[in-house]
Amino acid sequence: MRSLPLADFTPALNHQSEVPLYRQLYERIALSIRSGNFSRGERLPATRELAGLLGLNRATVSAAYDMLETAGLIAGQVGRGSFVTGQVTRPPAGSFDWAALLEPNALPPSGPSGGFGGGISSFVMSRPARALFPLDDFRASCQAVLARPDLDAILQLGSPSGYEPLRRHLIDEARRQSLAAPGDDLLITNGCQQALDLIARVLLRPGDTVAVEDPVYTGLKNLLLANGAQLVGIPVGLDGMDVTHLQTILERSRPRFLVVTSNFQNPTGATLPLASRRALLDAARAARVPVVENDAYGELRYSGDPLPAIKQLDESGSTVLLRSFSKVSFPGLRVGWVVGPKPLIDRLRQAKEAADLHTDQLSQAVLLEFAESGRLDAHRARMLQAGAERLAATLDACGRFLPPGTRYTRPHGGMNVWVRLPEPLDAGELLPRAQKEGVAYIPGRYFAVSRQEPGALRLSFAGLHPDQIRSGLAVLGRIVAEEIARASAGAAPSSAMV
Amino acid sequence: MRSLPLADFTPALNHQSEVPLYRQLYERIALSIRSGNFSRGERLPATRELAGLLGLNRATVSAAYDMLETAGLIAGQVGRGSFVTGQVTRPPAGSFDWAALLEPNALPPSGPSGGFGGGISSFVMSRPARALFPLDDFRASCQAVLARPDLDAILQLGSPSGYEPLRRHLIDEARRQSLAAPGDDLLITNGCQQALDLIARVLLRPGDTVAVEDPVYTGLKNLLLANGAQLVGIPVGLDGMDVTHLQTILERSRPRFLVVTSNFQNPTGATLPLASRRALLDAARAARVPVVENDAYGELRYSGDPLPAIKQLDESGSTVLLRSFSKVSFPGLRVGWVVGPKPLIDRLRQAKEAADLHTDQLSQAVLLEFAESGRLDAHRARMLQAGAERLAATLDACGRFLPPGTRYTRPHGGMNVWVRLPEPLDAGELLPRAQKEGVAYIPGRYFAVSRQEPGALRLSFAGLHPDQIRSGLAVLGRIVAEEIARASAGAAPSSAMV
Repeated sequence: MRSLPLADFTPALNHQSEVPLYRQLYERIALSIRSGNFSRGERLPATRELAGLLGLNRATVSAAYDMLETAGLIAGQVGRGSFVTGQVTRPPAGSFDWAALLEPNALPPSGPSGGFGGGISSFVMSRPARALFPLDDFRASCQAVLARPDLDAILQLGSPSGYEPLRRHLIDEARRQSLAAPGDDLLITNGCQQALDLIARVLLRPGDTVAVEDPVYTGLKNLLLANGAQLVGIPVGLDGMDVTHLQTILERSRPRFLVVTSNFQNPTGATLPLASRRALLDAARAARVPVVENDAYGELRYSGDPLPAIKQLDESGSTVLLRSFSKVSFPGLRVGWVVGPKPLIDRLRQAKEAADLHTDQLSQAVLLEFAESGRLDAHRARMLQAGAERLAATLDACGRFLPPGTRYTRPHGGMNVWVRLPEPLDAGELLPRAQKEGVAYIPGRYFAVSRQEPGALRLSFAGLHPDQIRSGLAVLGRIVAEEIARASAGAAPSSAMV
Repeated sequence: MRSLPLADFTPALNHQSEVPLYRQLYERIALSIRSGNFSRGERLPATRELAGLLGLNRATVSAAYDMLETAGLIAGQVGRGSFVTGQVTRPPAGSFDWAALLEPNALPPSGPSGGFGGGISSFVMSRPARALFPLDDFRASCQAVLARPDLDAILQLGSPSGYEPLRRHLIDEARRQSLAAPGDDLLITNGCQQALDLIARVLLRPGDTVAVEDPVYTGLKNLLLANGAQLVGIPVGLDGMDVTHLQTILERSRPRFLVVTSNFQNPTGATLPLASRRALLDAARAARVPVVENDAYGELRYSGDPLPAIKQLDESGSTVLLRSFSKVSFPGLRVGWVVGPKPLIDRLRQAKEAADLHTDQLSQAVLLEFAESGRLDAHRARMLQAGAERLAATLDACGRFLPPGTRYTRPHGGMNVWVRLPEPLDAGELLPRAQKEGVAYIPGRYFAVSRQEPGALRLSFAGLHPDQIRSGLAVLGRIVAEEIARASAGAAPSSAMV
């Protein structure tokens, strides 16, 4: 089993290109493998080795390797390296060659190739705790739906706009909260994710750029890339998106639209202050760029006063607002909605019908019953209390266990805290060791758009019990402290990374 | 209120263009309206008048007017004509101009602009009868899910592949039926519609052509157009797709893929015979074009022996098979699946995750229980009996009430019969009169791809009681006979169409 010759990996990567370096590297290696220059079982150089040879950041090489693994071209073996596995031979004669038909995969991996494993403290998923689901209230809501005289209508083919009783309920609520302007309409979608996807589908033309927060959650990056968009990142600080930077980008890059998470952004937890909301609207209006306000987390505020939505502040009708039941109630039921100007909603409804006819009606009816019966309000109150405890436990444990020099956001709600470890630590390199000790998180680079923060990581706390949060962060703090000591002693990191 | 000058509608339409004439006409008129050449309230020439002036088929003009109405640019008033309504003025100063941002709508209307109305006999929707839903069995299946110990897992965020117990059930079933080859995988989608959309998204590149049946159901046309595809239609006769014509098209147009409905095609009800299935596979293999086999209706065979699926006959792995619970059980629950070669399914899973994370889990769990408990089989048996009665009533009433010279398909299953009225009748022109008398159907032109059949219409019989079918076809037969008499007497049609 010979190792691949390093000379084959000395491509002329273009540091000026808009194509990220990791993707250039991925494509270069994938082409070599696909064109049969290497055979199954050959070993790739270690990430550290290749990074040094090419003068690249090691995270860049790791990201390219992750993509190769996702594409089924290589496989990693812990402690032994990565080996060529896939598509080095043509399929058997006479069988259909799908690999030749499918375009090279444009989507970066959303996590390490080996997955995150189980473990006692997995800060990986931004979702509520299973133990908090109000199962009896859910059952009661289902029973009420099963007893409805229009049950047969719920089971029949429905409208692309959504189940009309739920749609009326949501429109009325949006009107009461001044979230719907007089000319607005509302479309029910399979969660916020589909609303974002439909918006991308109706607005994007080939080559268009979309402005997003940087870092931003992987699901948004992936859906925009899948729709052929170029991404431009606006840095997010403790106070949300940097609006001054945004103004520059809007003028320079003329993005087709802007996606902003006003409250408790994923992954940082940051919330945009009122003045920034107004400034953002002014900048977007001046540049004639529409604003997509993703507010999946807005109802999960644990402290402080709620701020008006960008949609509420917008008098020009340039904003469209996305909300969802998923974060507050049951994520397995895929129901969200989008409120905005009628011309856009009309087009989104057409795209929705073409995409999947309509959103599942059983879940729409159950969630309507859950909301109208008052059970949603009662559940939200419990979720706010549980979330506040979990957030407090997280911030307290970060302060207690993470070494000096570590910085982290202090959100007032949502499900995520963003941690920046002191230099020169790389959160991606620490992860395997943390996982061995039962702690998992998502390294910052999976959320990166235009800038890399190797020391960053996301802690999703909402799904964990406060005890798990404390014990997990105690372990992580110890590992970080040991790595800092090791790094300052000039030794190699303990975890043999490939 | 002056009428629009006809001179403005004498554009140089290109009969050689790949853009259909109705769309060229639509774009020409929309541009005139949007650029402010006409003001609100101006009247469009009658379709008959404009068709005569431009030397076009009247159906072409009607289709363009329908698109204008869908786009909000004109509105029709029965008996008075169509008037310019929309977007002739810029939005108020300071407000956001969505109309300028949204691309012109590329999707043709899926039905007449005024809708189909209610009526005693609506042959419009291809769906099961509400009265046939087994509500008690559905309730029992829900109760079983609510009692499951993993209910909390069902309510939690799920996998893009689908709810794993359902996925295993479907894979096992596909293996038992030899529908899944050894290297195949299965992805759960929001019905067949989403499976088709995801396939289009991962396979299509700008400018690609897709080969489809002609006529074909509107939902497929719309999703392919929404994905930027050019469509090429393969004529469908009594014996399904014309495979000789297909060979020519595969060689000439090099489509990116082919979509075929092997059983009880929508809208014609036609089924592809065994020899044609083999010939289709041979042709597709020779041209290296993958086959998307849409089999939403396959389980609804009322008579005759079932045929092997194209997927079963395919030894080269070029076929992907789509199935669904929607037609046999509850269309309001959006659950279908796609079985095919793993490289394709892997890519579809990524696209699915980007599009909406995963399919609703409550409905997946309920449908699994419905299937595993044996209730689905019992229900299918009842559906087959009811469908057979409805189909027999339809064919019997077609023979009894439709005048000589009318032709219609004689399917062995599914939900649709395709009728061709004698020349020179136009099913679209007859519709308003039929609707006035309580009968509705979809005129053939909404299903047309490359060729128009003005006399064609679709009768979707599955949702109607046999009595409604008979009385509806008696009315339709009388209207058709009267129109034939009128046409042969040289008089103008009775219904004042615009």
